[in-house]
Amino acid sequence: MCRWLAYTGTPMLLDNILYKPQHSLIDQSLHSRMGVETTNGDGFGIGWYSPGLETPGIIRDTGPAWNNRNLREIAHHVTSPTFFAHVRASTGTAIQQTNCHPFRVGRWLWMHNGAITDFHRLRRDLSLAIDPALFSRLEGSTDSEVMFLLALSLGLDQEAPAAVARMVGLVEEVGHRHGVEFPMQMTVATTDGHRLWAFRYSSEGRSRSLFYSSRVKSLEELHPDLWWLHDVSPSTRLIVSEPLGDLPDAWHEMPESTYGVVQPGRDELLPFTPLPCDPRESLV
Amino acid sequence: MCRWLAYTGTPMLLDNILYKPQHSLIDQSLHSRMGVETTNGDGFGIGWYSPGLETPGIIRDTGPAWNNRNLREIAHHVTSPTFFAHVRASTGTAIQQTNCHPFRVGRWLWMHNGAITDFHRLRRDLSLAIDPALFSRLEGSTDSEVMFLLALSLGLDQEAPAAVARMVGLVEEVGHRHGVEFPMQMTVATTDGHRLWAFRYSSEGRSRSLFYSSRVKSLEELHPDLWWLHDVSPSTRLIVSEPLGDLPDAWHEMPESTYGVVQPGRDELLPFTPLPCDPRESLV
Amino acid sequence: MCRWLAYTGTPMLLDNILYKPQHSLIDQSLHSRMGVETTNGDGFGIGWYSPGLETPGIIRDTGPAWNNRNLREIAHHVTSPTFFAHVRASTGTAIQQTNCHPFRVGRWLWMHNGAITDFHRLRRDLSLAIDPALFSRLEGSTDSEVMFLLALSLGLDQEAPAAVARMVGLVEEVGHRHGVEFPMQMTVATTDGHRLWAFRYSSEGRSRSLFYSSRVKSLEELHPDLWWLHDVSPSTRLIVSEPLGDLPDAWHEMPESTYGVVQPGRDELLPFTPLPCDPRESLV
Amino acid sequence: MCRWLAYTGTPMLLDNILYKPQHSLIDQSLHSRMGVETTNGDGFGIGWYSPGLETPGIIRDTGPAWNNRNLREIAHHVTSPTFFAHVRASTGTAIQQTNCHPFRVGRWLWMHNGAITDFHRLRRDLSLAIDPALFSRLEGSTDSEVMFLLALSLGLDQEAPAAVARMVGLVEEVGHRHGVEFPMQMTVATTDGHRLWAFRYSSEGRSRSLFYSSRVKSLEELHPDLWWLHDVSPSTRLIVSEPLGDLPDAWHEMPESTYGVVQPGRDELLPFTPLPCDPRESLV
Repeated sequence: MCRWLAYTGTPMLLDNILYKPQHSLIDQSLHSRMGVETTNGDGFGIGWYSPGLETPGIIRDTGPAWNNRNLREIAHHVTSPTFFAHVRASTGTAIQQTNCHPFRVGRWLWMHNGAITDFHRLRRDLSLAIDPALFSRLEGSTDSEVMFLLALSLGLDQEAPAAVARMVGLVEEVGHRHGVEFPMQMTVATTDGHRLWAFRYSSEGRSRSLFYSSRVKSLEELHPDLWWLHDVSPSTRLIVSEPLGDLPDAWHEMPESTYGVVQPGRDELLPFTPLPCDPRESLV
Repeated sequence: MCRWLAYTGTPMLLDNILYKPQHSLIDQSLHSRMGVETTNGDGFGIGWYSPGLETPGIIRDTGPAWNNRNLREIAHHVTSPTFFAHVRASTGTAIQQTNCHPFRVGRWLWMHNGAITDFHRLRRDLSLAIDPALFSRLEGSTDSEVMFLLALSLGLDQEAPAAVARMVGLVEEVGHRHGVEFPMQMTVATTDGHRLWAFRYSSEGRSRSLFYSSRVKSLEELHPDLWWLHDVSPSTRLIVSEPLGDLPDAWHEMPESTYGVVQPGRDELLPFTPLPCDPRESLV
Repeated sequence: MCRWLAYTGTPMLLDNILYKPQHSLIDQSLHSRMGVETTNGDGFGIGWYSPGLETPGIIRDTGPAWNNRNLREIAHHVTSPTFFAHVRASTGTAIQQTNCHPFRVGRWLWMHNGAITDFHRLRRDLSLAIDPALFSRLEGSTDSEVMFLLALSLGLDQEAPAAVARMVGLVEEVGHRHGVEFPMQMTVATTDGHRLWAFRYSSEGRSRSLFYSSRVKSLEELHPDLWWLHDVSPSTRLIVSEPLGDLPDAWHEMPESTYGVVQPGRDELLPFTPLPCDPRESLV
Repeated sequence: MCRWLAYTGTPMLLDNILYKPQHSLIDQSLHSRMGVETTNGDGFGIGWYSPGLETPGIIRDTGPAWNNRNLREIAHHVTSPTFFAHVRASTGTAIQQTNCHPFRVGRWLWMHNGAITDFHRLRRDLSLAIDPALFSRLEGSTDSEVMFLLALSLGLDQEAPAAVARMVGLVEEVGHRHGVEFPMQMTVATTDGHRLWAFRYSSEGRSRSLFYSSRVKSLEELHPDLWWLHDVSPSTRLIVSEPLGDLPDAWHEMPESTYGVVQPGRDELLPFTPLPCDPRESLV
């Protein structure tokens, strides 16, 4: 469906990560290798944090990433310790900025690869489960935006993994009620600028690919084209829909039904299980 | 907010109506005289019926109409007996095709100038009142699209004026419940390709301007720049947010709280009164 | 580089040709099989003739064809006896409407797949060889537009094949002077709305693919998905960068260094040879 | 035609200058007071220098500045000591990024308000006078881009004011040869990131407006809405097509036929006179 990349660690020029690697995200927009779609040309977006600002910036546009000059300019001039990037392959939903990832509410960013099965049938019930105070934040028509607003409604700001687990539980509950066997297929990244979470999960247990670089040092050794990684701290992390080059050894595949936390101190890789969440009760 | 134009009658090259008049809708996109905003540069759209096709075509784009070459090309090449055109001035809502008018569902077109007051506060309740079968048709974030889907939910296809009256009643009921004194401000046009209805109404009784040409013949006499009107049938009608030239005598202002029906046989101008419609019961 | 399609014959709804075939041009924009690039997502265009109008209409846009709703709407509503369609893969040139094909001057349309080798080095000399009266028609930065204006400067309106042959001769002469061994690689279609010419040529003798349907009847028999071909006249022709489906037998490959003329009466397939043309003398 | 703004001095968040003033450039895009056109909605651009990079970044887009969310995001996150911003009103030239200002070659930025009279008639001769090594840098179709490439051809990098004077001399020479009485109308800003030059000149002696803030301190006193000016250095300068608020006293109008230099040390305001420049000899 889509391809995405999350970076956090030593402040980095976006260009080094977005354009320089051999099989960069920009290259994936044109020639994805592991995606359901080989072309991710239905829009793109980046979100990044600047020193001293709580709210991240987001740039989103509706054309392909590979030919966008403004994206290239920004990537050449913006350095950030934490940023997201996403290239979109629509499955029919409108091509518009508000359907492009990452989504932002306050200091939070959210991006997604995957789909809620038969979303058009579940959309009303899921939309109604959004906190009424957040409902008017809906600007587009994607499942991804609804998932984000649901996670926020269910406590993303307090305890992110539990909120995402409740969101998935809610989607599965609503899906099953409508006769959808496997409602959720997702790899999701979210961050508040301080910690970053990445989730790999699908109701069917056959999730889209997701990889992380546990030791950037090893990446540097294996990717001579990634020379700028020489100076990054050991705690710097990259999480990607598919590896940025031909050296799969440099990357670890995130296991099915897990999530990772990247945070000051020790990173963690933990099992992910949806939490029961009945939409009829969720907002009482 | 916006400016629009509705044409029905003798099949007409769109260019003659959209570009040729001295103060055409395209000119109004740059220099509106009677609008709340002088510039209507936040997108545009046209909808038109082709012989033998039930479903009208729609073209919508996010840039200004005045500099759009594709619109000019289409206008030079498409002839239609019934068409809508709209230029948009956003009040903050996203600039995207799915927020541009006209909206279409099946054979129906809908366009709007005005606003639901404090729509962000009423949006959730109004969205919930949309027929669940139509909910997934929501693609954008405007009040206008919600008004259309509500009107369809409330019987637009059976009895258009009553459905619009119920839609307005529902918006006013929801608005009052949220403490909004004057919830509705609208001039709306809608058509199924056979009959065309235009509504002028506001809760406050101070509606946006709306004009109609009762006798095209008189338009032709007064507008030497509208020579192509020479051959149109007497029953041809134009309804516009503001006159297409400096001759206000050629146009009749539609009175407050009225609606007009343009149809084979006799056109009608009738009073418009909202009908009570409780959203909690509307879909039972 | 690009993919294109030219149709002429029985008036046809664009949708039948652009969208309905299994491997339509729209599908080729996402998944080209025979192109140098598999993705042709850097803009698109159509040009079509309407009854009673000398000047064709053109619609061009900068996003991918595969997700463009306006193109789909136009294709559903426009019927034409002669039309061109093109999907673009840029090799670095700016993504802008004026770099999209087809190009139009007066009643002429022109579209191209291929490239002038090292165009940036030859561009000035080639631009200077354009008839000064046509120079200000340059709006973009492609080799294709320069080729068109050169062909017009060299008599396209009088004798199309000779003008194209002189244009190629001029490009080769200028190229060789700059040390470019094989300056031209092209498949070109051009029409004045009455006759249509398609050229396949490259200096190296290894031209991009080009196919034509000599007998539409055979297409219909082989392509059950092309049922609408049942009613077309025997003289209807399709010329395409690559076949519209899996039945290569339904198509004839145009030989190297040939051009075809589709015209009332008898179509012709003839050898194509560049004509000497010295830019220093061409405009004396 | 257009409106522009140049800033240089204490590193500044773009937002403070582009959005915060009462009659900011963004407001001028919708409601220009002193421009030939009241609406400047045909595209926009910014160019800015980042510490440690010779080459400035540029962001340009084809829609109006007033509704562009990406511009707002960048303005909220980018701080720069020297930046340009421009809002465009086209007079018929194509709406495309490559016609938007500022233009960039290497470390140079260039932006323009005005026009070469009858440019379509002079364009070929002027284009031929561009240094052949720079000819392939032409991407759009504006007079402004040609003026920039001519200035570069005539020594902008060595002695900017003399190069601009020769460029104007050349345009006037070519114009007069074609019977154009007053060929040039311009306010131009250009910078290499170290020094900044602004020119006000027209062949007729009736140039477009141009203002500068000689002492930012006075601006701060007069504009309570410009509080962030409190901390800027005394040498900080703003040059604008029209004042950013209702206090014309805070601004000095640049006199006819002058240019200003903003540079480390002492700024200067000097007379501007075109220098003779025959295109037939200019590149010998």
